[in-house]
Amino acid sequence: MTNTVKAALIIIGSEILSGRTLDKNTQHIAQKLNNQGINLIEVRIIPDDMETVVRTINTLKEQVSYVFTTGGLGPTHDDITVDCIAAAFGVEVEVNPEAYAILLAHYGDQETFTPARQRMARIPQTASLIENPASAAPGFQIGNVYAMAGVPKIMQAMLDNILPTLEGGAKTHSRTIHTPRAESDVADILRTYQEQYPAVEIGSYPYFKAGSVGVSVVLRSTDTDMLDTLEKQLTQALLPLA
Amino acid sequence: MTNTVKAALIIIGSEILSGRTLDKNTQHIAQKLNNQGINLIEVRIIPDDMETVVRTINTLKEQVSYVFTTGGLGPTHDDITVDCIAAAFGVEVEVNPEAYAILLAHYGDQETFTPARQRMARIPQTASLIENPASAAPGFQIGNVYAMAGVPKIMQAMLDNILPTLEGGAKTHSRTIHTPRAESDVADILRTYQEQYPAVEIGSYPYFKAGSVGVSVVLRSTDTDMLDTLEKQLTQALLPLA
Repeated sequence: MTNTVKAALIIIGSEILSGRTLDKNTQHIAQKLNNQGINLIEVRIIPDDMETVVRTINTLKEQVSYVFTTGGLGPTHDDITVDCIAAAFGVEVEVNPEAYAILLAHYGDQETFTPARQRMARIPQTASLIENPASAAPGFQIGNVYAMAGVPKIMQAMLDNILPTLEGGAKTHSRTIHTPRAESDVADILRTYQEQYPAVEIGSYPYFKAGSVGVSVVLRSTDTDMLDTLEKQLTQALLPLA
Repeated sequence: MTNTVKAALIIIGSEILSGRTLDKNTQHIAQKLNNQGINLIEVRIIPDDMETVVRTINTLKEQVSYVFTTGGLGPTHDDITVDCIAAAFGVEVEVNPEAYAILLAHYGDQETFTPARQRMARIPQTASLIENPASAAPGFQIGNVYAMAGVPKIMQAMLDNILPTLEGGAKTHSRTIHTPRAESDVADILRTYQEQYPAVEIGSYPYFKAGSVGVSVVLRSTDTDMLDTLEKQLTQALLPLA
């Protein structure tokens, strides 16, 4: 594939790994990045454990253009993302004056802005803030790592603030063809076309619902002309047998 | 934590990374493992790419007791899990006679059991089969790696066949306390109790819905007596302020 920009996502959340919470952030982030020509190439879901988080950040930030994290930014003892990212970049954590001012304004007065809440103004040195229009406590960016909240609505708002600042590559477009034939019936056809069109990623996803079976064939490429041509040919080739 | 058995999950699926499909397998697998005293400590979502899949399997199978994979077991060109796991274990792929017989019986006669379908009888040497009551094509186990289908209903059936064969540790139990107080209001309380009860994992999950805010506090431990004691104390401590 040509001109691809790669990203990775780290979901910091013991609540996902225990099965308590269904992660929906991955799909949202994947779609938004994809729209901008950025390919999400790996997601890791890891526990709220300092050593694991630091190691994962250090590994992935060398492999991709952008690393996103979700979770662990709140005021409680299990919110360790700030300290982990600071450790990964070898910087100290400081009370960020800008974050402090935003939070103080949000809570209204110094009495309501308790020490626990002041914790949310702790940001790694040299990081830039990511605005949080939902609940004031900011995310932050340092190097190629973007730390966002885990609560979906807040994460989405932060991501909307980040996206215009990212450099995307050629956007990957997709076409989906549905056929009522069994996957094993169309496997040879798909393999032949995949060999003929190496610049298109042909994915095959069987479905089973309400008694009917079939396959969704997804074509993905940055080249829309080639996609159009292949879509026409494959739609014909995948017609149900008479 | 005492007596924990660890597992990791590898989701092989470009369709999750593109945002096309919402992954629900993680939550199901996490819950089932947790019920059996097995802690899911990491999930990696990776693309249908040979080098990445082999590397990820090799890394994780050394770190945990059980590695599960989902996806990539079908008959099409993008189904590469069999070859990747064989490569990770340094064995050849063979036509497994048992799998061949199951599939032949399923399709009824040699003519319907086409070469594309016969591909699903390809299994790494020395692997054991995992029965697939839904659509016949089996999963397999080799060493501590369990390869399951990606389609949720089929994966669930395969997992039900695997679970009784796994050795679990002490089961982790949980208690959830809901409080209408803000997370930053209860942060100091939670931190104090966490220090007092290091054998209980105290998680704090704020929620925002329909205009109301609050926190779900989740206590997790293998020690139910300690959980009961802490739940009683914390429920009292987290009552709304008068």
